[in-house]
Amino acid sequence: MLVVQKYGGTSVADAERIRHVAGRVMKRVRSGDQVVVVVSAMGNTTDELIDLALQVSPEPDPRELDMLLSTGEQMSIALVAMALRAMGQEAVGLTGQQAGIFTRAQYGAGRISRIEADRVRAELDKGRVPIVAGFQGITDEQEIVTLGRGGSDLSAVALAIAIGADRCENCKDVEGVYTADPRIVPSARRLADLTYEEMLELATQGSQVMHNRAVELASVYNLPVLVTSSMVEAPGTLIHGESELEERNRVRAIAHDTDVAKITVRGVPDKPGIAADLFEPLANAGISVDTIVQNASEARLTDLTFTLARKDLRRAEGLMPEICTRIGANGFAADANLGKVSIVGVGIQTAPGYAARMFRKLSSSGINIELISTSEIRLTCIIEAARVPDAVRALHDAFELEKAE
Amino acid sequence: MLVVQKYGGTSVADAERIRHVAGRVMKRVRSGDQVVVVVSAMGNTTDELIDLALQVSPEPDPRELDMLLSTGEQMSIALVAMALRAMGQEAVGLTGQQAGIFTRAQYGAGRISRIEADRVRAELDKGRVPIVAGFQGITDEQEIVTLGRGGSDLSAVALAIAIGADRCENCKDVEGVYTADPRIVPSARRLADLTYEEMLELATQGSQVMHNRAVELASVYNLPVLVTSSMVEAPGTLIHGESELEERNRVRAIAHDTDVAKITVRGVPDKPGIAADLFEPLANAGISVDTIVQNASEARLTDLTFTLARKDLRRAEGLMPEICTRIGANGFAADANLGKVSIVGVGIQTAPGYAARMFRKLSSSGINIELISTSEIRLTCIIEAARVPDAVRALHDAFELEKAE
Repeated sequence: MLVVQKYGGTSVADAERIRHVAGRVMKRVRSGDQVVVVVSAMGNTTDELIDLALQVSPEPDPRELDMLLSTGEQMSIALVAMALRAMGQEAVGLTGQQAGIFTRAQYGAGRISRIEADRVRAELDKGRVPIVAGFQGITDEQEIVTLGRGGSDLSAVALAIAIGADRCENCKDVEGVYTADPRIVPSARRLADLTYEEMLELATQGSQVMHNRAVELASVYNLPVLVTSSMVEAPGTLIHGESELEERNRVRAIAHDTDVAKITVRGVPDKPGIAADLFEPLANAGISVDTIVQNASEARLTDLTFTLARKDLRRAEGLMPEICTRIGANGFAADANLGKVSIVGVGIQTAPGYAARMFRKLSSSGINIELISTSEIRLTCIIEAARVPDAVRALHDAFELEKAE
Repeated sequence: MLVVQKYGGTSVADAERIRHVAGRVMKRVRSGDQVVVVVSAMGNTTDELIDLALQVSPEPDPRELDMLLSTGEQMSIALVAMALRAMGQEAVGLTGQQAGIFTRAQYGAGRISRIEADRVRAELDKGRVPIVAGFQGITDEQEIVTLGRGGSDLSAVALAIAIGADRCENCKDVEGVYTADPRIVPSARRLADLTYEEMLELATQGSQVMHNRAVELASVYNLPVLVTSSMVEAPGTLIHGESELEERNRVRAIAHDTDVAKITVRGVPDKPGIAADLFEPLANAGISVDTIVQNASEARLTDLTFTLARKDLRRAEGLMPEICTRIGANGFAADANLGKVSIVGVGIQTAPGYAARMFRKLSSSGINIELISTSEIRLTCIIEAARVPDAVRALHDAFELEKAE
């Protein structure tokens, strides 16, 4: 089997864990598999580098920030390769450039344009384990670009597709994807498998397990991804394209997110173009808006509410007065302390009973629903942040997720 | 004027110093000069990375060690470029690869084979300050190679030659080259200029001011090098090819080194090939031997003494028993606590009075001379390490170096 294994920052946080990862990779190679490894920067390295950048510049130049941040993964590849060699396993660290990961020059948010995997294949043919720097690529002009949050997950999936790997293994400090966060719901159960769509919804709705861009890409190329532990031998959760018939119309898992903020714009004139005038300045400032709800209040005036990540709230609040003036709104109010809880499963939208059961359970738990949003396979309620753990437990119980499927 | 400025690790050790360096560079550019900057890794970064490597592997693979160490300079270029941009000066960090510094694949001891400076020139033409990573280059196979100790000095000189700079400025935490180490001789005087040969001897004999490979290269291309302060505005010391007539036959400076060890091989059969049998295994182990002295002791048996850096002594001692057996020597003795003191100046060898004055002064100071070595412009005595500061002071006094030339 040809496999790409991705190890995140926690898995390579110090010398001891790096040696542990090397031991795991070596064991896998000795078992007869061909392995390509993708690694992130060690532990908090990326955050420390950002701190350093902010010490020399209040707004670090994006190109130079990528130049700086990419050193984190380069350190990891060198150390993992050294550790493998010290164990007698031939290995070679490859920067994004050496691994042929080409991107467009969107600093801090690069998109992989193509992978020229000749070098990776050649190293495999020589019996060496290529250790590839995640999170980074190179433009045709030799400029170093990072891929943004979750970039290493994306590097691993893209590389697996490029070399025709049998699967990508996302090795983490958890043993797979659970029906809910086990820190909140002790009876949460590891899921044996999930469809791409289900994983995508979970990732987008707050599950930290895998980045949604990586899931999307795996889905397009139908690449199986195993989410598994980097610490212990565990079966993990397989993300793939097939959905078992009996899993249809079933809630598979609860996702949650406690970092949600909301802005309500009051007295918005109800005329065409208002939404664009409102959301374009936010988009231009790089602020992603999540759920949008429009409530008719008075004749020709509506209230418009949208949610965003809490970290973006302060910047959004700075932009709102000018936006309100331009669109002729009466004003705005912000709430920083929200969260969201979602039920996810293929086919739940076509079974309306699920929505009713979700609302009833939250209500009977005394949890007020601020906003509701839905997709084909997901139902999300925005609630008070402090009540999110209660809501997760209540819904896990209501949908009997602790029971084996 | 087109100038390459090199800043060492101490000059960019933290965010404050990086901003200071950026301010200095900007001022220089505003004065009308074109500046290319070469930087080392921040402070102790290189040593910290080596420590980390040793935690994952007792003998880190040289290729991966270079991959790891090169991140240090990459961090520095990004931060210096950010700091300049934050001050409103366009700047761009360039890795060794981006700056077109090509080397041969001798990991840890790369030799610059050529510089393709198109990118550096293009950035200058756009009014940007190129900030180039010192100490690193790239092979034709895209492998990252470091240049070994003093590598950043070498990068700066090579780049200055490649772009036809008017001079290279080596900006340090000292104000230039002194007649002796001012920490040992408070009356030591900054030298206004030195010939390449004099600087080379000082560098080789223990002066930390500039690496001898860089001086050699500057000498070959007749590139003027100004050794000056990165902290304050100071005239510095100009290293160049011309030697003033009145400086002939003059001791210019005292160099010293307190990290010398000595091995004496006893009862070496006096036959051809012995020296090769003795020194080849040491050279193969990467151990540089400095002074070699052979003393006839008995008929057909001689004692052979050589000096080496103290850090290499333990490894050399490990190799000696086998070497002694092979060459049929009686045994060996080691002394770890030696140092050397040198007087340097163009033409001193042709004036024998200097040697006599040096030996007399050391003798009258109660300092025993273990070995003597000479070059055309240098006279070196190996002495007890603990007496080196006394010797430097005594010789500085004897040759009246505190007096203006």
